[in-house]
Amino acid sequence: MIKINLYFASRLGRANRFSKAMQRTDMHSIITSEYAVYFDMDAYQALNDHLDKITYSKIFVLVDENTRKNCLPLFWQSVNGSKSMQIVEIVSGEIHKNIETCLQVWNTLSDFDADRKSLLINLGGGVITDLGGFVASTFKRGIDFINIPTTLLAMVDASVGGKTGVDLGPLKNQIGVINQPEMVLVITDFLSTVEPRQLQSGFAEMLKHGLIQDAPYWEVLKKVSDFNGLDELIHRSVQIKNQVVIQDPTEQHLRKILNFGHTLGHAIESYFLESGSHELLLHGEAIAIGMVMEAYLSFRLTELPEDQLTDITDSFVNRYGKVEFSKEDIPQILSLLKFDKKNSHGNINFVLLDAIGSPRIDVQIPENLLMEAFTYYTEQ
Amino acid sequence: MIKINLYFASRLGRANRFSKAMQRTDMHSIITSEYAVYFDMDAYQALNDHLDKITYSKIFVLVDENTRKNCLPLFWQSVNGSKSMQIVEIVSGEIHKNIETCLQVWNTLSDFDADRKSLLINLGGGVITDLGGFVASTFKRGIDFINIPTTLLAMVDASVGGKTGVDLGPLKNQIGVINQPEMVLVITDFLSTVEPRQLQSGFAEMLKHGLIQDAPYWEVLKKVSDFNGLDELIHRSVQIKNQVVIQDPTEQHLRKILNFGHTLGHAIESYFLESGSHELLLHGEAIAIGMVMEAYLSFRLTELPEDQLTDITDSFVNRYGKVEFSKEDIPQILSLLKFDKKNSHGNINFVLLDAIGSPRIDVQIPENLLMEAFTYYTEQ
Repeated sequence: MIKINLYFASRLGRANRFSKAMQRTDMHSIITSEYAVYFDMDAYQALNDHLDKITYSKIFVLVDENTRKNCLPLFWQSVNGSKSMQIVEIVSGEIHKNIETCLQVWNTLSDFDADRKSLLINLGGGVITDLGGFVASTFKRGIDFINIPTTLLAMVDASVGGKTGVDLGPLKNQIGVINQPEMVLVITDFLSTVEPRQLQSGFAEMLKHGLIQDAPYWEVLKKVSDFNGLDELIHRSVQIKNQVVIQDPTEQHLRKILNFGHTLGHAIESYFLESGSHELLLHGEAIAIGMVMEAYLSFRLTELPEDQLTDITDSFVNRYGKVEFSKEDIPQILSLLKFDKKNSHGNINFVLLDAIGSPRIDVQIPENLLMEAFTYYTEQ
Repeated sequence: MIKINLYFASRLGRANRFSKAMQRTDMHSIITSEYAVYFDMDAYQALNDHLDKITYSKIFVLVDENTRKNCLPLFWQSVNGSKSMQIVEIVSGEIHKNIETCLQVWNTLSDFDADRKSLLINLGGGVITDLGGFVASTFKRGIDFINIPTTLLAMVDASVGGKTGVDLGPLKNQIGVINQPEMVLVITDFLSTVEPRQLQSGFAEMLKHGLIQDAPYWEVLKKVSDFNGLDELIHRSVQIKNQVVIQDPTEQHLRKILNFGHTLGHAIESYFLESGSHELLLHGEAIAIGMVMEAYLSFRLTELPEDQLTDITDSFVNRYGKVEFSKEDIPQILSLLKFDKKNSHGNINFVLLDAIGSPRIDVQIPENLLMEAFTYYTEQ
């Protein structure tokens, strides 16, 4: 169900527009291949400048019930007070990241006379930015959109790269396009609205950035326990992802390294989403398991030293705990692997590590080694 | 409902591969901005060369019940015999050009292990090429596709330009992306499978090409009554559309001229599709009405001479007959205008003619003149 609420930003003052932001460390904007990621104090300024420059016929803000309640008021305080915007609300949760929800949003945009010169601002976590980006990219063959990630996961992962899309049944992100937003605003104030478990989930992607590109960064990250003051680390993570994506936007080669932990992680996440019998696993929690298992595969097949395998395993198990798999779970998880978008010609390709910071792409894994990886994880 | 049939092209011989094509006039391939349109004898050669060059993991052919029966056998005769392909069948008709059908095809591709290196060949009319192009462009964020239009309308309209998409309820092509196929094959042999009424419908787009770009071509076209031997005219139409699209692929300015007749035509088509009480109007039949009305607007607002208005009106009314509108129909049709993708900021922009062959874009029309245009048409 979509509820429509009409807000008029002009009712809200612009006081405090900079006062909050000024207390923070200033971080330079990161220019991606086609658009910019703005941080904190620069972010609202960039948005307001953009809205002054481009005359949109209508502006829509996509939220869920949580970001409407927790993030929208903060957003109103700082956005250009003269613009009126319409709020489109969808129900939160990965389970709603599907074509049915897209249909609801497309119909709502249509009912409210959105046209080709309308703008969609996606204010929320990865479900909102992925789904909203897809809806905007396909509505009347593409309207402008801006992403304002409000979760740690969305800030360090969805904010750069242009991947949009939704799930197809239990299969994640099967339907989508690569398309760039007009800009991305990373406003770390929103993290105060995110639950600790969700912060930990997002942190898994940051740990991944260390593992695939930056061993010293990994050393810093693995010791982080306080999630206040993450700003500079978030900036570093966006930088790493951006450097990778700029070199290979359509994932022909280098960009594949961002999938470390995701080949098994996605299958585990899909399986937990699909089977009613398991507790829901957050994305970061699933890829944390995936990274332990793929580190094990790296130890067995590529050159990852045993002490680094132990370091990775301990770091993740201490931080995320352990998930139990039954004997029945494992073959069902493996059967989901073939749907991973990274695969082609019936082969399953993994990203492995030669060392922390040194990834290797397109490694094929014999099925018995996959079983061993599950055994390794469960024996921790 | 999607039925899956597995065919193995290798069971079919390659005899006659060139014998038919050699009887035709050879026409040069038209190179578009990003891909080529191949005609007749060149077309199968180009497809076979492509399939030899690129190793696709799987090849799917999207058909409906008509093109499976009428076009697929012809296709098999000429396609590379060593490739196996899987057939995905959807139910024919504009009414099925929607997201539900996309979901069926996405799920079928997924069930049959399509991956990023798979190819979708769209064999059919505009519904198949538009919907298939959208499905391919969004499956796993985009797989290769090839269009083989089998109707006149699809050959001269859908074959160039990269517009893909589906309808949203009664609103045509509201959901889609601009994305280019690997190649387009125009094989006029397929026209022998098309009913006369459908040929006339497609011919309306060719008449439009004359009106917007080429007065001598219009003079030739308006006298055509025999639809055998259209090959060179089809080639000319593809050329005209291509010249326009190359200069403005994303429809910022020049490409808008292709919408002549479509602003009112689309609204009329949508209305007839939506209201159960009217006979279904084919696309070309609807834009034929739209072109008469927009020619009238051109006479009133721009510089179209009266004798040219009469020429246009007579040509379309003689060819397509007249459609009756009741007093209740007209306001409902006008209310659909605002959804046209060409519109923004609440204004409705028309493409009009200063003369046959000389279009003018972005003309705004007062509502009372729209009523007059309906009156003009109904009084013919």
